[in-house]
Amino acid sequence: MTKVAVFGAGSWGTAFSRVLADAGNEVTIWARREEVCASINEQHENREYFPGIELPDTVRATTDPGEAAWEAEFVVLSVPSQKLRENLTTWTGVLPPDAVFVSLMKGVELGSTKRMSEVIAEVTGAGPERISVVSGPNLAREIALREPAASVVACADEDVAHRVQQLCHTQAFRPYRSTDVLGCELGGAYKNVIALCVGMAVGLGFGDNTTASLITRGLAETARLAQRLGADPMTLMGLAGLGDLVATCSSPLSRNRTFGEKLGQGMTTEEIIASTRQVAEGAKSCASIYDLAAKHGVDAPVAEHVDRVVRGEISARDMMYAFIARDTKHEKD
Amino acid sequence: MTKVAVFGAGSWGTAFSRVLADAGNEVTIWARREEVCASINEQHENREYFPGIELPDTVRATTDPGEAAWEAEFVVLSVPSQKLRENLTTWTGVLPPDAVFVSLMKGVELGSTKRMSEVIAEVTGAGPERISVVSGPNLAREIALREPAASVVACADEDVAHRVQQLCHTQAFRPYRSTDVLGCELGGAYKNVIALCVGMAVGLGFGDNTTASLITRGLAETARLAQRLGADPMTLMGLAGLGDLVATCSSPLSRNRTFGEKLGQGMTTEEIIASTRQVAEGAKSCASIYDLAAKHGVDAPVAEHVDRVVRGEISARDMMYAFIARDTKHEKD
Repeated sequence: MTKVAVFGAGSWGTAFSRVLADAGNEVTIWARREEVCASINEQHENREYFPGIELPDTVRATTDPGEAAWEAEFVVLSVPSQKLRENLTTWTGVLPPDAVFVSLMKGVELGSTKRMSEVIAEVTGAGPERISVVSGPNLAREIALREPAASVVACADEDVAHRVQQLCHTQAFRPYRSTDVLGCELGGAYKNVIALCVGMAVGLGFGDNTTASLITRGLAETARLAQRLGADPMTLMGLAGLGDLVATCSSPLSRNRTFGEKLGQGMTTEEIIASTRQVAEGAKSCASIYDLAAKHGVDAPVAEHVDRVVRGEISARDMMYAFIARDTKHEKD
Repeated sequence: MTKVAVFGAGSWGTAFSRVLADAGNEVTIWARREEVCASINEQHENREYFPGIELPDTVRATTDPGEAAWEAEFVVLSVPSQKLRENLTTWTGVLPPDAVFVSLMKGVELGSTKRMSEVIAEVTGAGPERISVVSGPNLAREIALREPAASVVACADEDVAHRVQQLCHTQAFRPYRSTDVLGCELGGAYKNVIALCVGMAVGLGFGDNTTASLITRGLAETARLAQRLGADPMTLMGLAGLGDLVATCSSPLSRNRTFGEKLGQGMTTEEIIASTRQVAEGAKSCASIYDLAAKHGVDAPVAEHVDRVVRGEISARDMMYAFIARDTKHEKD
């Protein structure tokens, strides 16, 4: 059995651990809190996220990063993206020197505007042949329930992508290979921002025509930035771009969409955080993605406008009408 | 005021007539049935499709094609796609010789595998500079309610596209220009087939991950065929491709999606037609699109499988599992 360490016991880390166990691996989850570990080790479930969904015996949990990483061939990272650098820095001493990293995270670091794979490379010194990402239309709850889903496994080294693909291929979970790490990561990060924007439209009472237009324009914006940064724009039209975006925007359970809905209904960012005690990923990533686009001279109106609404500079309503009032022109202009 | 004839008083023809009137044109609708004309002329509404939504005084209706077409600068066509040839043939004598055609229809003719613009050219002898199409994320009900929406106006002659764009530009309806008639038409026709497939998945109880994957694969299939036929594949990533597809697949009101749901629940095509007294466009177009793809040597598994389910050759369940069970591979293979 292959040993896999999963750092992070949130919904996606937990659901993916179940996939890894179903694929025949021995999984050790690192969780920050004792009670989460106890629920996984004693009740074989992650009570906080998926009460009632049984985790196989081959999934164990620990609060000790050294114990989680011990002899692991693969190190799966699934922590909040703005916490990755800090966490990873404290773990470097215990990570096996030739383990392959598998990033499940979707975000761009504030300040540095680095993608998660870049943060991993910087902190651990791992080369591109040791860093992979998994991204696709993978709502965690459906994956945890073993509903069928497809995804993309990307690594600059296609042989390594193939190894990660085999690592997580089950009857329900079908990973496809790609070498476009950058395209997959940008698709994953941007989709949270677009879902926020779609949520705002829903909260304001706009219909399916408007949300479909926002999804279309948002994906074009993502592809434009991805291409400028050197990714293959077609990656964004695949499962890790369009697929992930549509799944997130369709799901009323999406945290980003829900956060946007509340903004659309007139709540401020502070009020939403106070009432839900969590910040949606897209509410942070919009600033770093807009920064990244500005650095590279790419027009990114969706990221820019979402950022301004999140900061409270304009209302969601004014933002949406600014979008809708754009002049008619050639579609590609 | 510009005179516009609209042939067809279905939901989209009626909603688009309202847009045309809002944009300041004089609209005469041709409707097959007296009672529909009476409801438009006397109650200023199309009671059958949009009871309670008022049509401006500048919208009139007649059952006489000659009266509808009289001095029209633009002839909008919005009849069922499999009926276009037959209808248009009877109207040729009354159509103004230099009117510009605007097709709102989304389908591919059975047998000939011709797109609607090709049928118009063949029957009327109009050149490409007189044939335009309008296509985008435009659920008719939302358009009729004047909710904001964007769309694409395509004509081989960009000046004509510009004229049609001006013809239907209102505060709520924003048309963008394109010269890719073929891409817009294929996107519109194919999306009905994909929506049928998505409906089947919903009817079988699959979740958002599965439907998002089907949308992604369906759009890639559409772009592949479009490119082979000479369209710009990027058109399919725009409002007339992705946008229209996402709007249709999001809407529980979509006839194609609903038809697919019933197939997914185990009903046969005959049973659905008997109970609803209508056939969804995609249930006819799947055969002609699959034919078209086969003629050009393009692999079209979504169209092929939807066609087989519609014909009753395989069950929706077997079809869906055949899709899901495909081997893992490189995403672009």
